[in-house]
Amino acid sequence: MQLHARRQLAAESIFSRMSRLAAVHGAVNLGQGFPAGSPPEFLLEAARSALGTADQYTAPLGSPALRQALADDLAVNADDVVITCGATEALHVLADALYGAGDEVLMFEPVFDVYRPQAALSGAAPVLVPMTLDMSSGSGQWTPDLDALEALVTPRTRALLLNSPHNPTGHVFTRAELERVAALARRHDLWLISDEVYDELYYGERPLSLRTLAPERTFTVGSAGKRLEATGWRVGWIVTPPGLAPEVAGLHQWATFCAPAPLQAAVAAALPVARQHGLYGQLRQAYGDRMRLLAAGLRDLGLAVQEPGGTYFLTALAPGLDPFALVEHGGVAVIPGSAFYAEGAAPAGLIRLAFCKPESEIERALQRLGAFLKA
Amino acid sequence: MQLHARRQLAAESIFSRMSRLAAVHGAVNLGQGFPAGSPPEFLLEAARSALGTADQYTAPLGSPALRQALADDLAVNADDVVITCGATEALHVLADALYGAGDEVLMFEPVFDVYRPQAALSGAAPVLVPMTLDMSSGSGQWTPDLDALEALVTPRTRALLLNSPHNPTGHVFTRAELERVAALARRHDLWLISDEVYDELYYGERPLSLRTLAPERTFTVGSAGKRLEATGWRVGWIVTPPGLAPEVAGLHQWATFCAPAPLQAAVAAALPVARQHGLYGQLRQAYGDRMRLLAAGLRDLGLAVQEPGGTYFLTALAPGLDPFALVEHGGVAVIPGSAFYAEGAAPAGLIRLAFCKPESEIERALQRLGAFLKA
Repeated sequence: MQLHARRQLAAESIFSRMSRLAAVHGAVNLGQGFPAGSPPEFLLEAARSALGTADQYTAPLGSPALRQALADDLAVNADDVVITCGATEALHVLADALYGAGDEVLMFEPVFDVYRPQAALSGAAPVLVPMTLDMSSGSGQWTPDLDALEALVTPRTRALLLNSPHNPTGHVFTRAELERVAALARRHDLWLISDEVYDELYYGERPLSLRTLAPERTFTVGSAGKRLEATGWRVGWIVTPPGLAPEVAGLHQWATFCAPAPLQAAVAAALPVARQHGLYGQLRQAYGDRMRLLAAGLRDLGLAVQEPGGTYFLTALAPGLDPFALVEHGGVAVIPGSAFYAEGAAPAGLIRLAFCKPESEIERALQRLGAFLKA
Repeated sequence: MQLHARRQLAAESIFSRMSRLAAVHGAVNLGQGFPAGSPPEFLLEAARSALGTADQYTAPLGSPALRQALADDLAVNADDVVITCGATEALHVLADALYGAGDEVLMFEPVFDVYRPQAALSGAAPVLVPMTLDMSSGSGQWTPDLDALEALVTPRTRALLLNSPHNPTGHVFTRAELERVAALARRHDLWLISDEVYDELYYGERPLSLRTLAPERTFTVGSAGKRLEATGWRVGWIVTPPGLAPEVAGLHQWATFCAPAPLQAAVAAALPVARQHGLYGQLRQAYGDRMRLLAAGLRDLGLAVQEPGGTYFLTALAPGLDPFALVEHGGVAVIPGSAFYAEGAAPAGLIRLAFCKPESEIERALQRLGAFLKA
């Protein structure tokens, strides 16, 4: 009696493993990307109010109030919105909806860890398109290699999965890059999946949504957990091309049936309040400050730091650093670059650090890292 | 540009459709199985307390407190518990973990609507084992055909998916039936998936958990939503055979990553309180009363009613009744038996009715049904 061969995809993620090791060794956790603080009080209050009134199933498409709130927020049609159990389920359902055995899916490497196993679970083959780290400009600059992207399209290619702002690099795809992606997708008749969970978390130019350039073929994925500082709530969404929401919801119903109803109701109430209160701008300010604190501290320790255009992560080069030794003996958890690459392909010494943590934690991590590097 | 062929599995379920039609036509909804009332106040209060303290990711395995609370409640090892986004996701993840292309999965027909598409999404073929409706004893009695089960095992059979108390029939599998199932699974080296979401909702003998007869091969699925009257909360669980929880959680992480964290915390706090307060006994009493009210009323209208041993559903035979005409013109939503059968295989006139509704609603449904049948 054996589990199915899919068990090979069941390894504990490096994120979970590092969070576990951080707890075991009392390390400062700059690994997994979840905020240290609580969600805004208006979100919590909306959830307290929803409890006792919105506790039973919603339709698989999601609560009408939340679909409408998202339509208003994103300037899309509510009929094209599907609510899911977090962005993870959104991406999982899209993998089932769009590709299967014999198909190829393009995605940029370094690649967020869920994309490859989700493609494999659907039966499709992930095809990795390099992002290059150009070190000619001092600390280094990430750029998607769009020539390589063109060259990797085959008759089997069904979709391109893109993430902007990009995790782990923080790269915000430019309009020129997205226009080239959209043109390529149109030329080869590909679906586009645009993972935009960090859409409101940027430090320079506002990210452009790929949907605006190719509405007929783009599925946009978003996350209330990322936007509203509640990563454990499991409320995500998909904006589909016109007319496809019922079929996407029809597959979502077999994965989870619907997203958590009281939390859907709370997010519906909180989305307009977040705009009115300027929450996203406050978060950009606060996280931008922490990003600069961390980046400056890492540079002081001699590391090359790639400052992100968005997300709450940055990458840095720390040649010779072993993140597993660091978490055990140095008291700091970071994610090794290898987590985002095919085996052996990661740039030497690449690490990802999360700065969605209190400044005191970031300072402590810098002190500990300094001591560890010296020893 | 086409969606993947899996789109064929994406049809709106009859449950969602009937709930939608019930809303459109102002019908009494005895279709979809969700309670009319609110969850118990101690559960809601536990959720209000968890908000602001348990809002970020849990590990994919689930919150340690909830895993321990379930271990205590079910008398299992906490290491063998995985928390999921509802029982639907639990069953979906198990399909991925246990079978795929070329495999066959046995399940009893009438069959709960998610089982067949979930098996098909995994690549496996569902094989339907008949439950027979024996009318020799008056109103009718459902029995699983275990001789047919034996005969349907092939070298491709990987698993048997069983549901007790059984939806839609309400059949509670007897010890003798489960012992025969366990022996067959051992003889053919099959996995067993035991969907026990109605484990605390029974009207006669307490259901036996299949796990107790075959712990080495049984995955038990349960649901906080069903137990605690909060079907929209999306907190379910899997109890795995010893040692397999990490691999099951490893697949769950690619489907949804984790279940809603504040609701996990609330369920952890509420499970022991539900025992102390005798909640399940109160629900059995209340639902038993409503079941008898509905059954007696249907009999008065001349229908043959199969009284359930568990669940909040009963089946009845209403020859010539068209449930779609009933919801539109008669103002009552019920589920046609065809929802639970391969095409054309349903017994003539079979319907499923939910009695997890207020007595006044049940009485109104009976009046309307009587008028509709007369007309």
